[in-house]
This record gives sequence, C-alpha cells and structure tokens, in this order.
Amino acid sequence: MGAGAGAGAVEGVGLAPGDLDDAVVVADDEIAESLRQALAEALGRPVLRGTAPGTGGAGVPVVRIGGRRPSFAPAERLIWFHSVRAGVDALLRDGDWPADVLLTRTVGRMGERMAQYVLGWVLAECQRVPEFLAAHDRAEWSGRDTELAAGQLALVYGAGRIGSRVAEYLRGAGIRVVEAGRATGPEADALLPRARWVIDVLPLTPATRGFFGPRRLGALRGATFVNVGRGDTVDLAALEAALRAGHVRSAVLDVLPGEPAAPDDPAWRLPRTVLTSHTSGPTTDEDVVADLTACWRAVAEGRTPALAVPVGRGY
Amino acid sequence: MGAGAGAGAVEGVGLAPGDLDDAVVVADDEIAESLRQALAEALGRPVLRGTAPGTGGAGVPVVRIGGRRPSFAPAERLIWFHSVRAGVDALLRDGDWPADVLLTRTVGRMGERMAQYVLGWVLAECQRVPEFLAAHDRAEWSGRDTELAAGQLALVYGAGRIGSRVAEYLRGAGIRVVEAGRATGPEADALLPRARWVIDVLPLTPATRGFFGPRRLGALRGATFVNVGRGDTVDLAALEAALRAGHVRSAVLDVLPGEPAAPDDPAWRLPRTVLTSHTSGPTTDEDVVADLTACWRAVAEGRTPALAVPVGRGY
Repeated sequence: MGAGAGAGAVEGVGLAPGDLDDAVVVADDEIAESLRQALAEALGRPVLRGTAPGTGGAGVPVVRIGGRRPSFAPAERLIWFHSVRAGVDALLRDGDWPADVLLTRTVGRMGERMAQYVLGWVLAECQRVPEFLAAHDRAEWSGRDTELAAGQLALVYGAGRIGSRVAEYLRGAGIRVVEAGRATGPEADALLPRARWVIDVLPLTPATRGFFGPRRLGALRGATFVNVGRGDTVDLAALEAALRAGHVRSAVLDVLPGEPAAPDDPAWRLPRTVLTSHTSGPTTDEDVVADLTACWRAVAEGRTPALAVPVGRGY
Repeated sequence: MGAGAGAGAVEGVGLAPGDLDDAVVVADDEIAESLRQALAEALGRPVLRGTAPGTGGAGVPVVRIGGRRPSFAPAERLIWFHSVRAGVDALLRDGDWPADVLLTRTVGRMGERMAQYVLGWVLAECQRVPEFLAAHDRAEWSGRDTELAAGQLALVYGAGRIGSRVAEYLRGAGIRVVEAGRATGPEADALLPRARWVIDVLPLTPATRGFFGPRRLGALRGATFVNVGRGDTVDLAALEAALRAGHVRSAVLDVLPGEPAAPDDPAWRLPRTVLTSHTSGPTTDEDVVADLTACWRAVAEGRTPALAVPVGRGY
C-alpha cells in the first residue's frame, strides 16, 4: 500500500488515496488512440500504451484501462483495472479476481440508452411498426388495431441501475412495472402468466445462467420477451419451444449465447423474433472518460467509487 | 328552453339542466348496435335509432349522437349533438353551427393513444427499427449506431389536451419539448432549424390550413416531421420539396389531405416517409360511453361539459 495517504484506505480494496500519486496509467492495446489521448487529457497525466507487464518499472503501482482480463503477472503491481464496458463477467470468469485490485467499470449513459431501446421496441410492437412499414411498401391504406401499452404489465428482471432506468422509462409510458431483483424474483415469477412484457436485464452469474428456461418461459401467456442482459441468461431451446407453443408472443434479442451470429445461426430463424446485434447499450469514448474520471476522483478522496465492482458477487 | 331547471342555463349554450328530463336520445344510423345498447345502459334511458328529424315528436328536445353534421331540420328541436370523434372540423365546415345547440365530442384516451403513437415512431426511428428488421431478414449481424433521443428538441404544434399529452410522453423519454399554441407559435417557429422532431397535432381551421408550407418546412435542418393532426394542415408539395432537399429528414404521416390514399396516390412515393392510414387516435366504444356520460352529468348539474366545443373557434 502506498505511503502518504491523507484519507484511509478505500473500503473493500487494498488501495489508499496516495497510491495514485505515483501510479502509472496504462491503456491496453484495444483502446483506440483517440480514447487514450482523451483519457490523458482528462486525467492530466500520461496514459502509456502497452500490455507488457512491468511497463512502469518494478514495484510501481499500475492503473490499467481495457476490456480484457489482465494477466496479473507478478512483474506488475496492478492496483486498479478500469473496464471500458459495463458487463464484467468476461473479466471475472477465468479465475478469482485478486482482492487487492480495484475493479471499476464504465456504465456511462448505458442505462438510458438501454431504456430507450426497450421502450422503443415495446412501443414499436404496440404501434405495429413492422406491419405498417410492410403495408406502406404495398401502398396499402388499411386500418390496423394498435395496442395501448398504458396499463399493461411489464416484469423487469435485473434490479441494478440499468434495470431501474428501464423500469422508469416503461412507467413513463403508463406501463405497470414490477422490478425483480434477487429478493423479489419469486413475486415476479408469480406474475409471469399476466405479463405483457418480460425484460431481461440480468447480469451473467452462475445463478442467472439459463435463468429463462422451460419453467419461466413456459409460464408465460402471450408476453413479449426482450433480452438486453446477457445471452447466456436464456435457454434458447426453451425460448424456441415457448415461441412455437405461443407462450411467448414475440421476442427481441439484443444478445445471444454465441455472438456474433453467423448467417446460418438458427437464432435467425426463431419465429416472431428480431435480433439487434448487441447494439442496445453502446458505451462511447465520452462515457469511458467521464466514468474513469469520476472513479479517479473518488479514489483520490478515499471513497469507494460508485462504479466499483464487488468482485465477490460476480457482476 | 325547458322548464324545471334547478340550476341556471349551461354557459355558452341555450340549454338548461331540466331540458334533459324530457329529451329523446337518438343514435344516428352510423352508430353500431352494440354501442347504441351500451349508451342506453349507461344513460339509463332509451336510445332511439334513426336519423329522421322529428323522431321524438314536435317540440320534444332531442339529443343526437353521431359522426356527421346533423340536418338542423326545423321539424326537430335539436338541443345537443355529441360527436363520436374528436375532430369536429367536418361537422363545422358546412355552415354556421346554431348557437343554441350544444356540441360535445369524444376524446377518450385519444391523447394517450396519440402520444404512444408519436413516442413509438420517434423511438423506432432512433432505434433503427426498420433497418434492424431488414438486417434480420438478411440474417446479417452488424453494428448500427442508434440515436439517443434524450436531450433532443421536439416542437409540438397544437396546444390542446392531445398536444399536452404528446409533450408529456416525449418528455418522459428525456426529450426537450416546446409546445406551440396560437400565442407561442412564433417562438417555436424560431426553433425550427434546431428541432430534431416536429409534431403536428393541429386542428383544422382556416388559420391552420397549409400551416406547414414552404416557409416552415424549408426552415427545418434535418427534423423528422410527424403528423397526427389533420392532413390539410400540411402542404404536401412543400413537404416533398423539403424531403428532397434534405430539410426534412423523414416523415411519418398518419393523416393526408385526401383519405384514404389509393394505391396510385403520390403520397406513397414521398421519400423517407411512412403512412399509417389514420390509425393513431382511435376512439373506442368505451371512450364514447365514458365521454357522453360525463357530458350528461355536467349538463344535468348545470355545468358546461369539459368536452363542449366552443363552436365559434372552429375546433
């Protein structure tokens, strides 16, 4: 632990505010040059490029910014890794994360973006956007019943900040929303037959792998299923069966267990389903700069960053 | 005017509460039988069917429910006409409306329905719904930039209860909204070059015919134009020119000057435009029953119904 810390150690990680004074900041090779420069400017210090451990010299504290799990090589004293993405399951799954390495992530306006995605696809279905586009191509003027989303029931699985934002947007359109976190999941499950919308915003953990399987999807009675969480939280065979049985009315899948989907991937042929190529929650360079800067300020003041990942929880 | 009115005459119309006691209620022929029955049940009195004036006998006060301008034949003492639709320009355009005949209209949940339509098409464009549907048909997994509507500027022309509801929904998605009524129109016009969305919720009056013509549409710099008001508020030739010049990015038209559009109507070939066959604001039978019942209660209590049309204004 570094010397000269005015405040105490940052709660939950072996990192003291003074550690940052001497730290070397390194951007992994996948970071675009324009982002590296923007980060250096925002932090007011050099951001080196390179993935070779020990870049800053033996014993020098290192802060890394990247998207892939670091090597944790003994030659490097890694004190903090900042993920340029919100989903950190890929960082955590290949072994324990050392307790003395702070892990923070970029969320940016992702909650807002995903909420707009969800509400956009929900209302597009209610307004029969695909049908009207097709009728327009046929130059066919014809009445078509639209659906008033207000008053319908949506279940939002995943009670983090993204799920809350999704719920807020849906409520803004008059939809009744039940948010299902770990504690409230059973109550939400009991409502599955009455839901018009089921929104998957789950992180991927051992407990959520295949979360939407035959039991939950088979309990639906005409809901549309939207997944903006993780592909592996859904059992695609169970989803296909529920679509064919009519338990699931339609599906909008931004994520799949295997990405990208090749042209011959059977997921393209799921009935009444649209895939949107993992685009619902982009993080921009501005998001990375803003979130890392906020984390830096927190650590420098001895606070745990709001975007710190409690690594023991797995997401 | 009828005798026995406990309260005074209803403001603005030559109708006193007691008039309803003796009135005969008549449903025009276009009213479906199921709706006629529902109205009779809700009002607790017979609702006759027929358009022949004098159905109830000479001098008997008549309340009519329908969608077309009544004949105002001398043989019938019409005291009140309730429109099953919100738009009343077709009722008012063929001559003055007698000052002593109350005119009320059905709005129902139309504001909410139109607001869902507008927000649905706005977000569908931001989320590239048409492009993703097409990419799905090609089994093509590919990133595609979506657009965050939050923070964008929308101008909503038409400051009535429908326009307010549209504004409320757009604000719920983080969009900045300027509402343009008759008094605030010039301020909104000054913002046309900066708008991302221009929403037409205007009623049709002599002042709004061709309201969106070369001047306003030519002032746009990339806005999408959405019309859920009246078709004749838009100069279609000016719209086409603005679309071709790129001043208008795209258009969503629920209404046209001439409806329905035949397959060879040039409106189908406007660039980057979708027509939705006048479906954005349906009024249901439930809406007619609820709104007429509320009007009846108001009149019986000597109040002017909230849904009364100030006929001199023309909408």
